[in-house]
Amino acid sequence: MTNFSQIDAYLEAHLDESIAELSKLCAQPSVAAQNWGLNECAALVAQMLTARGFHVEIDPTGGAPVVFGERKGRSNKTLLFYNHYDVQPAEPLELWDSPPFEPTLRDGKLYARGVNDDKGHLVSRFFALDAILAAQNELPCNIKFVVEGEEEISSIHLKEYVHSHAAKLAADACVWEGGGVDHREMPMQALGLRGICYVELSAECAKVDTHSGMGGSIFPNAAWRLVWALNTLKGPDERILIPGFYDPVKPPSPREVELMAALPETSQEYRKHFGIDHFLKGLTGGVELRLAEVYEPTCTICGLTSGYQGPGSKTILPARASAKVDFRLVPDQTPDQVLRQLRAHLDAQGFSDIQINFLGGEPPARTDPDDPFVQMVVESAREVYGQPMQIIPMIGGSGPNHPFIEVLHLPIVSAGVGHSGASVHAPNENMRLDMYLKGTKHITRILDVFSA
Amino acid sequence: MTNFSQIDAYLEAHLDESIAELSKLCAQPSVAAQNWGLNECAALVAQMLTARGFHVEIDPTGGAPVVFGERKGRSNKTLLFYNHYDVQPAEPLELWDSPPFEPTLRDGKLYARGVNDDKGHLVSRFFALDAILAAQNELPCNIKFVVEGEEEISSIHLKEYVHSHAAKLAADACVWEGGGVDHREMPMQALGLRGICYVELSAECAKVDTHSGMGGSIFPNAAWRLVWALNTLKGPDERILIPGFYDPVKPPSPREVELMAALPETSQEYRKHFGIDHFLKGLTGGVELRLAEVYEPTCTICGLTSGYQGPGSKTILPARASAKVDFRLVPDQTPDQVLRQLRAHLDAQGFSDIQINFLGGEPPARTDPDDPFVQMVVESAREVYGQPMQIIPMIGGSGPNHPFIEVLHLPIVSAGVGHSGASVHAPNENMRLDMYLKGTKHITRILDVFSA
Repeated sequence: MTNFSQIDAYLEAHLDESIAELSKLCAQPSVAAQNWGLNECAALVAQMLTARGFHVEIDPTGGAPVVFGERKGRSNKTLLFYNHYDVQPAEPLELWDSPPFEPTLRDGKLYARGVNDDKGHLVSRFFALDAILAAQNELPCNIKFVVEGEEEISSIHLKEYVHSHAAKLAADACVWEGGGVDHREMPMQALGLRGICYVELSAECAKVDTHSGMGGSIFPNAAWRLVWALNTLKGPDERILIPGFYDPVKPPSPREVELMAALPETSQEYRKHFGIDHFLKGLTGGVELRLAEVYEPTCTICGLTSGYQGPGSKTILPARASAKVDFRLVPDQTPDQVLRQLRAHLDAQGFSDIQINFLGGEPPARTDPDDPFVQMVVESAREVYGQPMQIIPMIGGSGPNHPFIEVLHLPIVSAGVGHSGASVHAPNENMRLDMYLKGTKHITRILDVFSA
Repeated sequence: MTNFSQIDAYLEAHLDESIAELSKLCAQPSVAAQNWGLNECAALVAQMLTARGFHVEIDPTGGAPVVFGERKGRSNKTLLFYNHYDVQPAEPLELWDSPPFEPTLRDGKLYARGVNDDKGHLVSRFFALDAILAAQNELPCNIKFVVEGEEEISSIHLKEYVHSHAAKLAADACVWEGGGVDHREMPMQALGLRGICYVELSAECAKVDTHSGMGGSIFPNAAWRLVWALNTLKGPDERILIPGFYDPVKPPSPREVELMAALPETSQEYRKHFGIDHFLKGLTGGVELRLAEVYEPTCTICGLTSGYQGPGSKTILPARASAKVDFRLVPDQTPDQVLRQLRAHLDAQGFSDIQINFLGGEPPARTDPDDPFVQMVVESAREVYGQPMQIIPMIGGSGPNHPFIEVLHLPIVSAGVGHSGASVHAPNENMRLDMYLKGTKHITRILDVFSA
């Protein structure tokens, strides 16, 4: 039986050192969308792993490199940590109370871009290993790290990376990039992600915009072509009209419904925070709203662009128009399926002139809530949080978990240092120091029960 | 019988002086859309009229002032010149070969923003009056000028101005802002303008954009609301679906069809210049294309804006979406009719949430091609151009001619110094010096026959 009093004492005694290391990592900008500081940040991560006795490889991907680290441990089991060193753009800068790349402590929180998503989680894993190494002089199991630099731009090279490095990444289980407590201070275990198929649809009808007084009656209008094409995808009843789109959809299992029913009510919070006056399809709240939120696929217009968009009027007939459209996918839909069906549908509806530009996609994937590893991690929270984690079988967002589940065959859990006010992706991103300690302690417990 | 040899000799001898005066006017920026230099330009116009013995009033409108000028003449008939001193924005500046507000002579042309539209026309009227005054020491008839400063922003205060100054503006006929020759060097007489009703349609479903992974299945999406609402306005067969929209439409008269049939073919030019591969409604060219171009009302999407419009993907569900929509109207449609029917239609289709913001409108209006004044002006071109003008009974664009025709009851003709390569509204706007002389000579002939 591991003596956690020694480990916890180490964590409490060395908190300042770990925060200093985290601050150093946060001070290194690494904005994937702006291709800013990625190689420098990868080198810093590699250095932090090397300092802990890890064998490190900086693997090229065609984009930002993946930092791979590996160190053997006592048991022959292997735990894989997936994290990322890239961050969201910090803009709008004027809304930050302290500069985003100058980590600042105030009111028990560390503020910086990426301090929560995902650098705080990464360094908290290092901190947990430091405490265990200090107490035991060895790791309890084999540890591997995959730290990518493109998570905030749809992990565009990660799927291929996992496929081509499958043997190197072989493991028994995986801890995902983050986690933590919700607004009730309840530790949450999110197990599945929806898939996504993100496309840009565009129409081009002429070389140049024309005067609407001349061409309006006789020239094709790209904006109209786009509107009519979009209208064939989904009607006001929200039913997606692409033939075959729903065929692979599997409804949530009774176990998933049971878990969703146990989650807290969200409707009032949504109404208040986002200022919406009703939900779609007559939903008002309860488990029905939560189930619809994640177990129904979507077709969302994320953006529209055409012609004149300034103040007042300009009388032109636009040569070009485009829409960003995001399909969220549920088991067992795939981006390939959607792309194929979308093209066939547009052609059949008379819109073969509409171009489809695929901007990224991932299939949905989830870990079985009754997997023994999941149960072990959920229970292991009790010692830190006074209660086991609450399971969310699937969330509405997407991420690159599919190849880890389907190629590497790993159960994936989430665990971390986050809290509900962390302002992830927003100005004043922050991390609570008390959660940093708790989340790190939880990681030491996970390593312990996993290695036993 | 007027001795035009003396008048023409004056024009040829004083061309440089008039170009210098025009250059001074063009050097004064007067961009209505940017509220730049309007009062200064109005003062300059007033000064040019005063210098010619005109009684001048600078009338406030709530926007840019109208410069009104009046001078009595020999006959008791009154001719009203409508012009404007404002110009289009000069952007994109990098495409100009010489600075837009530094008038430059090269290759027999004067280059400057507004040199054609409309300052060249205005100063050519002054030049014609100078020549007549030099020869006859009096004007042949009463002359009035209405020179507005908001033509390039839909003449937003002119209708009200004409109504409230109707007695002051009383006249027997009106010469419109411009005119000139087409690509065949044929002087053209455009007699009618379509109306316009320009609106912005917008949807707002939330306070803020939300993450598409969360809200996609359950939150209303402003972009979808807008697309569905637009789709109810017009289908791919181009038929406008607003009930009653076509009820007031009067087809072109046999005389108008005859005049349209006599106009040159445009289809090849349109295909080549604008890079379009087909016309709407199966049209291929001929008089059918020309009739559709101006005698059918339109519903044109001029612009679409919503959500994320940058490169790559961003997964948001937009809180707001808007479209600029321009209806071109034919006799006897009106903007009021369209606004009323549009609101009722959107409400009936379940889109009472779509806001309509009216951005400007004017009813269609036209002058009878067989009006004696028109015939007189058409014939008067023969001495200058070697042939009478060719009549275009209506063009597809819009303008503020309606109150002049319907309130002041004036026949309106077009006459001027333009040519087909003038790059109106575009970089390198220019005016041919030979056309400046010819157009000005034509104005002297129009004054002569009108006053007789």
